[in-house]
Amino acid sequence: MSAQDGPATDGDWLPLREELRGVEPYGAPQLDVPVRLNTNENPYGPSAAVAADVAEAVRAAATDLNRYPDREHVALREALAAYLDADTTAEVGAAQVWAANGSNEVMLQLLMAFGGPGRTALGFTPTYSMYPEYARGTSTAWVTGHRTEDFTLDLDHVRALVAEHRPSVVLMPSPNNPTGTALAPETVDVVCEAAAQAGGLVVIDEAYGEFRRDGTPSALDRLPAHRNLVVTRTMSKAFALAGGRVGYLAADPAVCDALRLVRLPYHLSSVTQATALVALRHAEELLGRVAELRGERDDLVAWLRAEGLDVADSDANFVLFGTFADRHRVWEGLLGHGVLVRETGPSGWLRVSIGTPAENAAFRDALTLTRKEL
Amino acid sequence: MSAQDGPATDGDWLPLREELRGVEPYGAPQLDVPVRLNTNENPYGPSAAVAADVAEAVRAAATDLNRYPDREHVALREALAAYLDADTTAEVGAAQVWAANGSNEVMLQLLMAFGGPGRTALGFTPTYSMYPEYARGTSTAWVTGHRTEDFTLDLDHVRALVAEHRPSVVLMPSPNNPTGTALAPETVDVVCEAAAQAGGLVVIDEAYGEFRRDGTPSALDRLPAHRNLVVTRTMSKAFALAGGRVGYLAADPAVCDALRLVRLPYHLSSVTQATALVALRHAEELLGRVAELRGERDDLVAWLRAEGLDVADSDANFVLFGTFADRHRVWEGLLGHGVLVRETGPSGWLRVSIGTPAENAAFRDALTLTRKEL
Repeated sequence: MSAQDGPATDGDWLPLREELRGVEPYGAPQLDVPVRLNTNENPYGPSAAVAADVAEAVRAAATDLNRYPDREHVALREALAAYLDADTTAEVGAAQVWAANGSNEVMLQLLMAFGGPGRTALGFTPTYSMYPEYARGTSTAWVTGHRTEDFTLDLDHVRALVAEHRPSVVLMPSPNNPTGTALAPETVDVVCEAAAQAGGLVVIDEAYGEFRRDGTPSALDRLPAHRNLVVTRTMSKAFALAGGRVGYLAADPAVCDALRLVRLPYHLSSVTQATALVALRHAEELLGRVAELRGERDDLVAWLRAEGLDVADSDANFVLFGTFADRHRVWEGLLGHGVLVRETGPSGWLRVSIGTPAENAAFRDALTLTRKEL
Repeated sequence: MSAQDGPATDGDWLPLREELRGVEPYGAPQLDVPVRLNTNENPYGPSAAVAADVAEAVRAAATDLNRYPDREHVALREALAAYLDADTTAEVGAAQVWAANGSNEVMLQLLMAFGGPGRTALGFTPTYSMYPEYARGTSTAWVTGHRTEDFTLDLDHVRALVAEHRPSVVLMPSPNNPTGTALAPETVDVVCEAAAQAGGLVVIDEAYGEFRRDGTPSALDRLPAHRNLVVTRTMSKAFALAGGRVGYLAADPAVCDALRLVRLPYHLSSVTQATALVALRHAEELLGRVAELRGERDDLVAWLRAEGLDVADSDANFVLFGTFADRHRVWEGLLGHGVLVRETGPSGWLRVSIGTPAENAAFRDALTLTRKEL
C-alpha cells in the first residue's frame, strides 16, 4: 500500500487550486533515528499514572461516544482558563478561552474569521514556516517584514509595515520559532497599538511560552491593556501532549464568539476533551519536566557558545545555532551519528530541540565528531 | 462564566470578515429533553466491552503522547479501506482513503484544495445546511439547483447547471439530509460525466450510507468508473462514534495527495486514531445495531403514512415527515411531550431521528397527542 509519503500520483487532471500546484506537503522528514531532536517534542511521555488516568477518563467518555461532544467545550475552557490565570498577572476566565485541534487549527480559525480574500496577515521573518500556509489556506495575503540581526524586532520597521499594509492580523510567535527569541513587553505594546490603529488583531503565538526564562513575561500579562491582543498556547510542548492535538487561545470574549462562526460544529472530540482535562489535572507533574528542560537548554546554549558557535538567545525548548558555510553537511553529519536536527531558519543555522540529558549529550558528541570530520 | 451559547459579546470593533457579520453559529439547539431525536445520533453507545478496549488502546497510546501522531494515519487508512472494501463491489485500498476530524473536516479540506476564490461549488436544495458554510469558510461560491417534488434529481436540470456554472466541486449527500433520499446509480453516473466535462469533482456525502435500504447501492461501486468521484463517510452514525469525530473519504489516490497540501500537519490525534481503530475492530457489534435501526426506520415510515402524513422515502436513520401548515407549533407540541425533533428542510416538514424502540414509541405517542391538541 502507498498511503505513506512518497512520489505523488498523477493528479494533473484534478481541479487543484492554482496556488497549490507544485507545492510539497508541509512536514519535517520523519526518519527512524535513535535521537530525534527535530520537531521540538517534549522528550518525556506522560507517566504510567497519567496514562492510566487518561485511559479511565476515555473509558468513561467512550460509553457516550454515540453522542456529539460539547461543542462549546465548557469544562475544558474552564480548566485552561484556570491554568492560564495562574501563569499571568492578568485575570483569565473561560469566556476568554477557546480551544481547537492543535494551535494550528486555532490559527486557521483566526484567519478564517479575520483574514480571507482582500485581507492581509503580517509576519516578520525568520519565523514559523506554517504561517504562510495558514494564510494560503484562507486566501489571505501574507506579507513579511524582517527581524534584526539578533532576531528581535525593530519597532520603527514594525510600525511602518503595519501602517503600510494595514493587516487584519499580525502574527508573531514569542518565543519565535525557529530562533527562540521572545518578544519584549514593550514590543507587544507597540505592535498592539499600531495594529489597533489599522483595525487589526495581534496574535502572539506562545506555543513554547512555558519554556521562557525567568524574567521573560508572557504576553498574557498585556491582555487587559489591549482588546485586540490574542495569545495562543498549545498543550503539545510543555504538557507533552503533541499526540493529543490541543491548542488554545486567550483573548477578548468577542474573539471567541467570532470563532464560533467559522469552527466546524463539534470540532473537538469528546476523547480529546477528556484527555486534555486529565493532562491539566496532572499539570504539576507534566510541567515539572519543563524546569529540567529549561536548565538543559541553558546548559546547551552555554556549551555551544564555549565551542565557539553563534547561538540565538532561547526562551524555548530548542536552540538555533551556527553559522555553518554548509549547514546541510553538518545536518548530514549529525544524522550519520544518529542525531536528527532540523535544517530550518536563516541560511547557515540549524535548530536542535532539547531532549533528555542523554539525548542532549548524544547531540553534543555528534556535533563534536561532525565538526572534526568536516 | 459565560462560555456557553448566549448573547454575543460586543465585537463590532473586530475585523470580522464581511460575510460573517450578523451570522449565527451553526448548530442544533441543545435542549435537555428526555428523548432527543434531533441530530441523527445513533441511540446506542458502545458497549462496556468496546469502551474498555478503547480505554486500553488509549492507555497504550498515552505513554507516547509527547510525540506527534502519524500524520499519514496509515494504520487507520488501512482499516477504513478494508471496511469499505467489504461494503462495495469496487476494490478500495488505503491509498484511496483519507480521514479527518469528522466528515465536515474532510469537506473543508476538499474545498480548500479544489474550491476557493473564483471557484464554484454546486448543490441541490433541500440539502445539508452545512454545505454553504464550508463554501463560505473557503471563499468558494455556493450555487444551488433544486430537487424535484419527491426530492430526487432531474438529470436535465443537473446537466444544465453543471454546464452553466462549471463547478469545481459538485456536493450532494446520498442519502440526502434532511430528506433521506438516496441517489440512483444512474444519477451518480450522469453527474460524474457532466462534472468531468467541466473539469470538476463530484463529492457524494454518504454520512448515512450504511442505513440505505436493501437494493440501494453505494456510490462506492461507481469509483472504478469515474476518477472524479469522491465518496465520503463518517464513523459518527453507523459506528455510533459522533463523539469521536472521524470522517473519511474514498477516491482516486491523487485526491488524497492533494489533501496533504491543505491538511493541517498532524490533524488527526493519536487518541482519535487509536479510538477509531478499536471501533473498526468492533464493527460487527456496532453495525449490528444498524440493522435494527433500519427496521425501526421502515416501521416508523409505515406508521406515519398510516397516520395520513406525507413521508419522504428514507435510506437514512431519520425520516422527513409532514406537511404541516405550522410546523413550528408541531415542533413545540412534541417538545412539550418531551421529544426533541429538528425543524429543518423544506417548509412544512419536520425531521425525526430514529432512536431506540422506546424512543420511537415516545415520538409516536407525542405526535398523536400533539396532533389532537392542535
